[in-house]
Amino acid sequence: MKSICEVEGVEAAGIKEGKFGLALIKASGNAAAVFTKNLVIAEPVRLMQKTMEAGRLDGIIVNSGNANVFTGEQGYRDAERMAAIAAEALGTKPEFIGVASTGVIGRYLHIDIIEDQCRRIKDTLASDEKAGDDAAGAIMTTDLYPKRAIARREGFTVAGITKGSGMIAPNMGTMLAFIYTDAAISSTDLKKALLIATERSFNRVVVDGDTSTNDCVFLTATGLKGTQDYDEFCSALEEVCISLAKKIAEDGEGATKFVEVSVTGAKSEEDAATVAKTIVGSPLVKTAIYGEDPNWGRIIAAAGRAGPDFDPMNTSISIGDGEKTVILEEKGVIKADDKINPAALAAAKELMKGKKLRIEFDLGTGNYNATAWGCDLTEKYVEINGKYTT
Amino acid sequence: MKSICEVEGVEAAGIKEGKFGLALIKASGNAAAVFTKNLVIAEPVRLMQKTMEAGRLDGIIVNSGNANVFTGEQGYRDAERMAAIAAEALGTKPEFIGVASTGVIGRYLHIDIIEDQCRRIKDTLASDEKAGDDAAGAIMTTDLYPKRAIARREGFTVAGITKGSGMIAPNMGTMLAFIYTDAAISSTDLKKALLIATERSFNRVVVDGDTSTNDCVFLTATGLKGTQDYDEFCSALEEVCISLAKKIAEDGEGATKFVEVSVTGAKSEEDAATVAKTIVGSPLVKTAIYGEDPNWGRIIAAAGRAGPDFDPMNTSISIGDGEKTVILEEKGVIKADDKINPAALAAAKELMKGKKLRIEFDLGTGNYNATAWGCDLTEKYVEINGKYTT
Repeated sequence: MKSICEVEGVEAAGIKEGKFGLALIKASGNAAAVFTKNLVIAEPVRLMQKTMEAGRLDGIIVNSGNANVFTGEQGYRDAERMAAIAAEALGTKPEFIGVASTGVIGRYLHIDIIEDQCRRIKDTLASDEKAGDDAAGAIMTTDLYPKRAIARREGFTVAGITKGSGMIAPNMGTMLAFIYTDAAISSTDLKKALLIATERSFNRVVVDGDTSTNDCVFLTATGLKGTQDYDEFCSALEEVCISLAKKIAEDGEGATKFVEVSVTGAKSEEDAATVAKTIVGSPLVKTAIYGEDPNWGRIIAAAGRAGPDFDPMNTSISIGDGEKTVILEEKGVIKADDKINPAALAAAKELMKGKKLRIEFDLGTGNYNATAWGCDLTEKYVEINGKYTT
Repeated sequence: MKSICEVEGVEAAGIKEGKFGLALIKASGNAAAVFTKNLVIAEPVRLMQKTMEAGRLDGIIVNSGNANVFTGEQGYRDAERMAAIAAEALGTKPEFIGVASTGVIGRYLHIDIIEDQCRRIKDTLASDEKAGDDAAGAIMTTDLYPKRAIARREGFTVAGITKGSGMIAPNMGTMLAFIYTDAAISSTDLKKALLIATERSFNRVVVDGDTSTNDCVFLTATGLKGTQDYDEFCSALEEVCISLAKKIAEDGEGATKFVEVSVTGAKSEEDAATVAKTIVGSPLVKTAIYGEDPNWGRIIAAAGRAGPDFDPMNTSISIGDGEKTVILEEKGVIKADDKINPAALAAAKELMKGKKLRIEFDLGTGNYNATAWGCDLTEKYVEINGKYTT
């Protein structure tokens, strides 16, 4: 089992009725959060920027179906009302409640539905696998399946749930994640660890390049397993965040293939990440992958507009499916071409038929690396997003 | 008629055989060009950066079907060979020939086909409408129709042809344009005028956010109508460039709707252009338009990640079809909502059924404006780009 309920001190509950879902999670301890970088932020995010200053949470309430964004004063009051509803259900104060929303933008919240759902699920709060799954399922919007991850270490555990799917881009998408640990850590150290882990995971997932107004990642430490090695905790947290991030990419709206882009030989980790994210986010690269076409010209063209400087004639590109790898170009020499090397081109096309594709791009300018994750672009993505609010 | 052949001193010819097309245009005079900003540039572009220093052309040769990008030394020699082939056909020197290519990346040119096609069309060079149409048709790749524009002024004419369709993004896409005037203008003044006109036209068209390695706009002045008012020429040139740019957006790959985004109230023209291009390029906005869904939340979310600072609560968004206009939000107050104002929401959906949509977005922070053009994102775009080289 991979439930957040494996973390000592965590109880969960959830319900999903049509497009309206509600998750309630009870866990007391030091806490930290990171939020969207979009200029337009959801009302619950606005509220959380204040709430999280205290660095402590007793629980979290999350609704799906309405993002409560661009709803002004009423939206802010609705977010406060959600905190009050959860505080009453969990027997604490509203200022110790994390609030998050996901769904359509620019519509007022159906607070009555949320209040009713919370009243009905609060007594089902439990720390078993089903409870964790109910919470993971309740926060889904266009997600096809609930997303969980866990990292067990000697003496403590880190586990989390997330929802993503659409509007996924650097600086996260409509991406909510709720992560828990039973290690005892200060809120300052939680924040520091969360910023690094988020940068190397959620911020490197690109589905469509749109950045949401609601992203947030909450991290709560119940502390029930006492003090633990900080570096060990950071590595476990990063492991959970990357595992959740990859699940978001795998479940990208309409995706048929999971794509991992590994950029090496960059002048800095930031450069490597920028190029990796630009490649994995390129509509032309994404459609070529969907078409199982090793059109590496689109890969280098995307890298060329990414920003970081490099010499195209000093780059190398290869693709693989986890088992086989085919070099497409090496130091500027074309290795898969219908005139020069049709066999390599055929081999490349063959391995693209798989469900997972790894693109390796060496910039040949330095020693820094970064990996980004995404998916192909399909007719289904268009269908899903062409019909979302109607 | 809108043929470049209406410009005195211009002769054209063109042929399209399967995916391989060739255009030959004869016109002597001062010339200027602007090129792609992608770090990875096509070999013909590399050659033109040298050629255009002289500021004069006797003619242009353009092939479609192969972009001659990332083909290294051989590719560069192939581009030089194209110039030599055209020079021989037009009776001039290779250094006075403009060379451009469009098509698939990373494959060596079939120079034999180009040489053969040039030999066959050179004797068809003419200054009639059919000749101009042949050239406009020869440079098409996934374009559905040839694109021409003309601006007639007292005493002189400016006319051009272009091809676009895929890989269209800020800093142009796989976008080739060949513009002619019979006004007499120095190459320095041509360059100055072209940079401004390009910034306000081709650089504000977004189809898929990918920037090509081959973009170029050539401007040649035959001078046969003598010296003309420079401002008058600049306005005519901008008119032609904007007309061509809008045709590229209209013919975006798989597009069913043309979208114009007008941003007002910005702190600078650059800010306004950045926001307009981000909105018109957002996959979620594009799919919502395809789905005829007035999901303005996606519009403001896109603006929020564009970069320029603004107060969401001081913005206003409306959409129109050229006749009717519906306000979606005004100074932060929602004007079209299924709870607050279902009638406005219905009216908005109704006008989105048209083929042309105009989005007006007021940032409420300044007095500068900019317009960007694009199209919706459809299953057809995915189909076209998922199968392009295979």
